[in-house]
This record gives sequence, C-alpha cells and structure tokens, in this order.
Amino acid sequence: MFKKKNSLVIDAADHSARGGLLNRRLFLSSAIATSAALATTRAAYGQEMVGEGQEDWVLYPGSDALEYSNRSRFEVASVKRLLPNDPQEFLDLRLTKFVARTPLDHLMGTITPNGLHFERSHQGIPDIDPNKHSLVIHGMVKNPLKFDISALENYPTVSRNYYIECSGNSSILWQKTPTDQSLQEIHGLLSGSEWTGVLLSTLLDECGISSDAKWIIAEGADNGMMTRSIPIDKALDDTMIAIRQNGERIRPSQGYPMRLLNPGFEGNTSVKWLRSIYVSDRPVMSVQETAKYTDMMPDNKALQFTLEQDVKSIITRPSNAMSLKKHGLYEITGLAWSGKGKIARVEVSADGGNTWADAALEGPIHTKMLTRFRVPWLWEGGSAILQSRAIDEFGRIQPTRKELIDARGRNGIYHFHAVHSWGVAKSGKIKHVYA
Amino acid sequence: MFKKKNSLVIDAADHSARGGLLNRRLFLSSAIATSAALATTRAAYGQEMVGEGQEDWVLYPGSDALEYSNRSRFEVASVKRLLPNDPQEFLDLRLTKFVARTPLDHLMGTITPNGLHFERSHQGIPDIDPNKHSLVIHGMVKNPLKFDISALENYPTVSRNYYIECSGNSSILWQKTPTDQSLQEIHGLLSGSEWTGVLLSTLLDECGISSDAKWIIAEGADNGMMTRSIPIDKALDDTMIAIRQNGERIRPSQGYPMRLLNPGFEGNTSVKWLRSIYVSDRPVMSVQETAKYTDMMPDNKALQFTLEQDVKSIITRPSNAMSLKKHGLYEITGLAWSGKGKIARVEVSADGGNTWADAALEGPIHTKMLTRFRVPWLWEGGSAILQSRAIDEFGRIQPTRKELIDARGRNGIYHFHAVHSWGVAKSGKIKHVYA
Repeated sequence: MFKKKNSLVIDAADHSARGGLLNRRLFLSSAIATSAALATTRAAYGQEMVGEGQEDWVLYPGSDALEYSNRSRFEVASVKRLLPNDPQEFLDLRLTKFVARTPLDHLMGTITPNGLHFERSHQGIPDIDPNKHSLVIHGMVKNPLKFDISALENYPTVSRNYYIECSGNSSILWQKTPTDQSLQEIHGLLSGSEWTGVLLSTLLDECGISSDAKWIIAEGADNGMMTRSIPIDKALDDTMIAIRQNGERIRPSQGYPMRLLNPGFEGNTSVKWLRSIYVSDRPVMSVQETAKYTDMMPDNKALQFTLEQDVKSIITRPSNAMSLKKHGLYEITGLAWSGKGKIARVEVSADGGNTWADAALEGPIHTKMLTRFRVPWLWEGGSAILQSRAIDEFGRIQPTRKELIDARGRNGIYHFHAVHSWGVAKSGKIKHVYA
Repeated sequence: MFKKKNSLVIDAADHSARGGLLNRRLFLSSAIATSAALATTRAAYGQEMVGEGQEDWVLYPGSDALEYSNRSRFEVASVKRLLPNDPQEFLDLRLTKFVARTPLDHLMGTITPNGLHFERSHQGIPDIDPNKHSLVIHGMVKNPLKFDISALENYPTVSRNYYIECSGNSSILWQKTPTDQSLQEIHGLLSGSEWTGVLLSTLLDECGISSDAKWIIAEGADNGMMTRSIPIDKALDDTMIAIRQNGERIRPSQGYPMRLLNPGFEGNTSVKWLRSIYVSDRPVMSVQETAKYTDMMPDNKALQFTLEQDVKSIITRPSNAMSLKKHGLYEITGLAWSGKGKIARVEVSADGGNTWADAALEGPIHTKMLTRFRVPWLWEGGSAILQSRAIDEFGRIQPTRKELIDARGRNGIYHFHAVHSWGVAKSGKIKHVYA
C-alpha cells in the first residue's frame, strides 16, 4: 500500500568525487533521500498531536498589516557587520563606520534584500533630496544635458540582475596565515540585485558624443566626491544609470536617487549618488585610481584600471559560521560569478582539490550575476577540506591560491579571487585554512 | 567632430500599431531617441556649474552604515495600501486590517521588496517563535515526520522566482461600472519574489506516501487556521516549503518561519505559517474551499478547486496614478504572468484593442513568474485607450472583458483576468475605463 519513490541507497555510482561528494543528479532529479541526515527529526508524531499544546499565536488574533512589513523579531543575527577586515587598508578607524558586509551565511538564493546589500562609502551616506538632485552629462558632447529623477523615468528602462563586489572583498586572504574571521567578514562585500534603470548609451546617444571620446568620468554627490574614469566602450555597452533595486527606489546607502552601475567591474566604479558624467579623451587620474584601487605587482609597478573582475566562487554553507553536529547528508552550497559573463560550471572538492565533483547550478543563469550552486555531501565524520572552483563561459578557471600568488605576488590588496578552503575537523568544527 | 548614433527620425516604418505605438526594436537596439520627450530637461548646463550651489550633503560627511539599511525618508508614497477594494467581500470591516496591497505604480522590474509584498491573512499575523514551531507530515504516509526550521535547512534546497496573486485580485472589475480606484487598489494583490525552500516532493518521498493518496491538506498555525486541499499531483510537482524570500528568511506577514508555495495556484493555497500537511484520499472541504474561493457560474453552480490561475497582464505605467504632463515619447510598461507556465508574448494597444503592437519582454523569462514588458509610445495629445494582452507558452490568450463575462457570467468574485483598459484624455489625465 505504501510507496517510496526513492529509497536511501547511496552506492559507488552515486559518488562523483572522493570525500563524500555525491552526484549532482541526486538534486536535479529531486530524488535525493535524506533519511540519514534526519534521523533525529523523527520525533514520533503520535506523542505530540496537532491541537494539543497550542501556542498563543494560534489562540488569539494576530497583528494588523503594515504599510511596510518588518522582519521577525527572532531574526537578530542576519544583519550587516560593520567591522573592518583588513588592517592594511583601514588604518584610519573613522572609515570603519562606512563599511558594512552582507551576511552571506544567513542568505540563500541570489538576490540580496536591499537592507542587507553590502556598502562602502568614502565619507558616509548623504541624505539627498531627489528634488534638488540631478545628473549632468557634459564634456565632449554636442548637447550637454541634465536629468533629474523624473526626466530619467521618462526614458526606456531595462531591468537586469547583476552582482556588485568591492575590489577589496576577501583581501585578508592575501596575508600569509589563514584568518579566524567569519565568512561574512572575509567575503561579505558581495551582493546581488535586480537593478532597473536607463542604459547610459541611451543618454550618451541623446547628448551626441564626440568621436574622440575615450573615457567617461563619473562623480558622486557625496562628501567624498567619489570619482572614477570608465572606458567609453564599457559606457556604451551595458553600463546603466540605476534608479531602482529589487523593484523599489535604491536606498540612500546604495546611491539614492541614482547611481552608476558597471556590471562586472569592481564595485567602486559604480559611483553612487551620481551627479556628473564628464565625457573625455583621457581618464581623470583621481585619487581612487592612483593612490587606491590599483594592483601592485611583484616588481612594485602598479597596474591601473584593472576594472573587469575575475571568475570566482565561495562556499557559503557550510562555513565557519556553523559546526557540523552529526554525521550524514549535507548540502554544500555557494555562489559563483564572473565579471566577464556567465558562469558555465562549478566544481566542488571535499579533499582539498584532489578530486572534483560537478555542482548543480540554479538557472536561468544571468550574465555578471551571482549563480547559486549546490552539491550533496555525505559527511561520515572524517576531516575534510571543502573547496569550490568556478569556470565561466569564456573558459576562465578560478585559480588556486598558489597560482594566483605566483602570478600576482602578495603586494596588492585587491582582486583576491583564488579558490577558498574550509577545513572540517573530525569534531565537525569548520575553520578557514589554506590548502 | 561630433557623432550622434541615432537621430530622432520616427517614420512610418517605426510604427507597429495605431495610436503612436512604436516598434519594440527601438528598445531592443538601444537606439531609442527621446529628444522630443526631454526637451524640457535641456536646462543649459553652463548656467548651473557643478561645484556651485552645493547642497549640504556634499559639504559635510554623511551618516554611518547601519546593520539593516533603510529607505530614503523621501520615499513616503511607496507603501502598501490597507484599504478594502471589494465591498461584497469585505462587509466585515475588521478584515480590512488584514489586507495590504503592493504599490505596483511605484515599482519596476519583477522582484517585489519583502516589505512591500502584498498580504492577506484571515485572522492577523502570528508572532511565531521558530524554536517552538514545526511542520508535521502525516495521514496516509508510512513514516509521519516532523520538521523544525533547522531540520528543513538540512535538506536539498531550490531557489526559484515565482509570483503570488490573490484570487480576489482585480475583483472590483467584475462590477458593471468602471472604478475610480488606483492601480494599486485594483491590482495590488500581486507580487513576485525569489523563493528558497525544500520541494515538498522531497519530504513526501521521505515520509513514503500511500499509493491511494490523492490530496494533501495544508493547515496554518495562525488564529484563522487557514486550511486548503491541494491535489497530490501538484504537491509532487513544483510545490515547495518556502523558508526564504529574496535571500532572507520570509517575514511574519509572509508566513514566518515556513509557508507552502504552490506556484501558479491562487494565492490562498500557499498556506502561511504552515504547521501540518495531512496526506489524504479526499479534500477536506474547509470553509476556504466551500463558502469562499469558489467560482459561481451563471447557473448559480459553484466551481470548486479552480486553483491554477489564468494568463493575465496589466499596464503599470502609465496608470491612473499619474497624468501625462507633456506630449512626446513614453514607455508603456507592465507585468504579465501565467499560472500554467511561461509568458510567450505580450501585445499592447493604444486604440482600445483595434490594433496591437508586440511588446519587448525582459528576459530570461521564468515559469509562473512576473514578466516585465515594455513598448515605446509617442503621445501626440489625442485621447487613447491603453491595453495589454498576454499570451502564454501554451497559447492561452488573455480574454477581453466581454469574452470573460460571456464565459463566466458576473456572479463570481474571483479570478478576474480580462484585458484591463486605461483611458487617456486629451488633458493627459488617465482613468480606468471599460473598452
């Protein structure tokens, strides 16, 4: 009388790499059986009947609807962290209040709620009245133009999913010894959103740019007057003026009422509180592209305008934010992204990179957006080293830490994107390791 | 020296339907020229130099980062509305505080921020302690099982974009005369999210359901004890237990800590605050599937379990929330969705349905999710009737109001999904009309 579509028989054919990594088809077929992991949840149902021992929330009417709904008062841990992570960069402690990291260990999917999007400002969040703010496009253009928010909203819009990552994300991993910092502290300068706005190419076309134009220079209306130069080819490609994030107007911490968004470029180029785009035949050489945000090579030469980001991935669960409490089946999941395009494949290792299993990717896969990957893992109590390795549609492979340092040295502080390792002890405790 | 890639020359070939509807290629090629619409934004740049007349937010440091960022204090209009819309349904005014509508006129893209997701409860929002809440699966199963939130999080998860629409959305449009209500009041029981959770099939497989099982009966832990029966085929297909919405844990108003989610089915079946799934060979015939949520036909017979939703679309901009202030180019945009699968095509009319233009669809298109459509429109000051018509991948075409009423009569109050019309007067004022 009873059927059980799939029984828990994990045999040799289900293993796709050593260390307990199982075939991703076990996910894709929805045929995964997880009895082993859930033995402890099998409280005998008969001992606790529905209808007995009702909590107050069933017995009395609940609260009214609100104009803007809040999170549960029990979700206190899922907040941004305001601590610095790289003492090299944040010698000026006043700056630490201008950095906040996304709680990646508390999130799933690919969209970051607007309140939890990471932030980094250079002089705090301005409180801009949108009726007193506008964007000017000037310089090497035929018709300099000025746009307030309502003028922008009359233009054709696009809505696209893009990640933003600070170029200083994960920078603590350049140091010689592994860190005790949490997943959020190490990698939390990374978020994903559905952005709506106007393609910059639409506005530049309206202005009529000079055929000699080679760069645009974007400037923010914050007290830091963040200023970055962007190549004209990018500006005419997918760069947009974003006015909405996940449907609603972008929040002050994200550049309200309008920001530049350069998909796949290092985060600081997506200038927030955007007020000026100057079209030029040369970059402006601002402090943000000379003293900062350059990559110091082993020979002490600094590479400038290394704007397009690499291919990268991280395992978000399990991580050092949790310990494994029992043997059995787990889901290893994380995020992969490429500054150049789409993620094509993600591989996961449980033995420090000796053998690799293909992970299942949640589709549809967007270009220059976070892609969620998952692979089933049977942990039988041994020590393990968990790693993920992303490959993008152009065949770019995320390097090992050794490969990255061999190529770029250890003088830089930006663009760390090598394979990241979580060490699992026999006790189930997880910590960051180099492997 | 100056180039202008595309000049504003809109000729006969650009028109795809009468009444000013232009070819969607003008969007897709990013070659749209909007000079006409923006003449008033051309304030001579020289008269207002950057650097002069700086606002305070440029002159002084801004505010610190927060653990959870807020919206701008200027965004006061983008809130849910708590008013009833259908006097037939909401005779009991106490219920009105349990309904809140999404401000569709203030949103773009397809994702609804969690705080603005529409809500409808039957006895208020319970304040559930997740440590005291669990879901039991019982009835015609081999192994009754109980899952708390941490047990659920050990299962393989999926992250998918789905809309939810209340079956009572747009119900005022069944009445004989057009309404003065706003877009938000008429159609605001509709939202879209990236949901993460566990497929119910995974859990039912774990429990081992009887081969005689035909239905599941889902019950919420709210004071209304919302109870609905779902066919077993749906439960084994794409139904999920959702625990996260747009990355973070779902909010109390959306069913914290766990809810059922039946993609494409009428909203009330996606039982919030889910505490029990009883596997059965028959539906439970709860008040929510007998006295309510049935469709009264012209012969006064009521259809039950009309769960899968139709194909539908609405224009969200322009709408009666705004007036057209000047002649020129506008973007007509809106949302289309189907309870059965993907949207294949959306057509837009500016002359009350006499001629239709293909709209551009923003991809990638998800199954059972909102799809954003757009079409350029040149308004030269005449009166117009704006309509959208959606077609899904199965060839289902959104009916006209007359077709819908001819087929279903006017005794029902649910599942209104006919073509919706905005009347544009020569003054630029927009109101809801029947056409």
